Amino acid sequence: MVIADVSTGASPQVDRDYVQSLERGIAVLLAFDEEHPEPTLAELAQITGFSRPAVRRFLITLERMGYVRGSGGRWSLTPRVLAIGQHYTASHALIELAQPHLLRLAEETHESASLATLDGDEAVYVARVPVRRIMSINVSVGTRVPAYATSMGRVLLAWAPRDVVDSALNRRPLRPITPRTVTDASALRAELARVREQGWSIVAEELEVGLLSAAAPVRDRTGQVVAALASSTSAGRSSSGQLQREVVPLLVETANRITADLGGRP
Amino acid sequence: MVIADVSTGASPQVDRDYVQSLERGIAVLLAFDEEHPEPTLAELAQITGFSRPAVRRFLITLERMGYVRGSGGRWSLTPRVLAIGQHYTASHALIELAQPHLLRLAEETHESASLATLDGDEAVYVARVPVRRIMSINVSVGTRVPAYATSMGRVLLAWAPRDVVDSALNRRPLRPITPRTVTDASALRAELARVREQGWSIVAEELEVGLLSAAAPVRDRTGQVVAALASSTSAGRSSSGQLQREVVPLLVETANRITADLGGRP
Repeated sequence: MVIADVSTGASPQVDRDYVQSLERGIAVLLAFDEEHPEPTLAELAQITGFSRPAVRRFLITLERMGYVRGSGGRWSLTPRVLAIGQHYTASHALIELAQPHLLRLAEETHESASLATLDGDEAVYVARVPVRRIMSINVSVGTRVPAYATSMGRVLLAWAPRDVVDSALNRRPLRPITPRTVTDASALRAELARVREQGWSIVAEELEVGLLSAAAPVRDRTGQVVAALASSTSAGRSSSGQLQREVVPLLVETANRITADLGGRP
Repeated sequence: MVIADVSTGASPQVDRDYVQSLERGIAVLLAFDEEHPEPTLAELAQITGFSRPAVRRFLITLERMGYVRGSGGRWSLTPRVLAIGQHYTASHALIELAQPHLLRLAEETHESASLATLDGDEAVYVARVPVRRIMSINVSVGTRVPAYATSMGRVLLAWAPRDVVDSALNRRPLRPITPRTVTDASALRAELARVREQGWSIVAEELEVGLLSAAAPVRDRTGQVVAALASSTSAGRSSSGQLQREVVPLLVETANRITADLGGRP
């Protein structure tokens, strides 16, 4: 049976289990970003690659649902889009429960504290208490960074199942993000073993020049590592050695407290 | 022309500008919450009111897009759904810019600090530094509260256009959420005038028994009030009088600093 996805004006689609207009509608939502906070219909068509009539129908639908609003030919997201992510936060007790620990860590270290989980080969910030803006990227909840080049990602990979690690390290040639990024898969595997052994990770300037971070694992009641707790600073204020002496013990202790709150044993 | 939204198995739809399967797919995403963090397909069908085959197609689509995953007959959201809200945050400079101010306010008051904007007749948390969990509802970014019964909402309504205020206060009978909730529209209008006059709002136990909060306006460079900055505490630790003496001056000062960062004049 051939299904014509008439609502998008797209070509007929043979996969009856795939709802193309849902994917395309969300693609329109995701076309709004830092560079295009208030795009026109024409700009949205260009970014998404969809026809203007299709983009128009998605915008009208999203506007009636309250997710976007149009004014003077420009469109913007409304805060209602936050509700979608809020359902993730509300359905994951870990995040709410970790908040006071993140705040205390940020207060005691005077540095930003973050909690991340693994999604594919990326670490995703699921909670964050920012103290200073160190990174040039806008690090807010939902931001994704490559797991192999970050302390949070290495902690998450260190205790991940073999197939997840293989997929993160082998799927494609690892990109040198800075001159210091380790991109050799076997060197990274050795590093993951070291992280598992010592119980924490420090990564210096592999994601961004001038950025240092340390991370430690958070476990659930079954002992599985479900998140990484991280503290980040700049090369101007600290060094790997100083981070290890002054921040890692507090970081590990805080991660263990979150683990205990989750009913796990550190 | 009659458009059959074949992908959802729904009845034919006459409005060719409305993409029903986009609305329904997002409804499936929103069916995951605190009470149903890992629903089955049958539970999702019950919550959304859609047929099981329709829910199944949305789940398959959302799974291929990376937003949900299924295991052992149960489904859960992945952190990728946070990306949707992240685009709101990234496209609104105010939020990133307000973060260090929220943190300092939370540190100085030892109470949770929040930033909210108005969406219809509700205030939406767009940034938050939680210190303690006071409210029984899970207050994370994206949470919505009725504007008329909260200090943030009253600040946002105090400077809102007349039609917005009319819609928030007249559209339906205002519900008494606690025994102290003000539900009389003319009393609320008088209160909004007072908020405009004094430059801040305090609301005590109108949203939840035991919850007190104070809020002050943040303006953009055009002078328009674009957000409310709020500090919340509990009746056990403070009182309206104490909040006014000890927190309001700091709150107004912090809101003015955010306004200045936005290029506005407090």
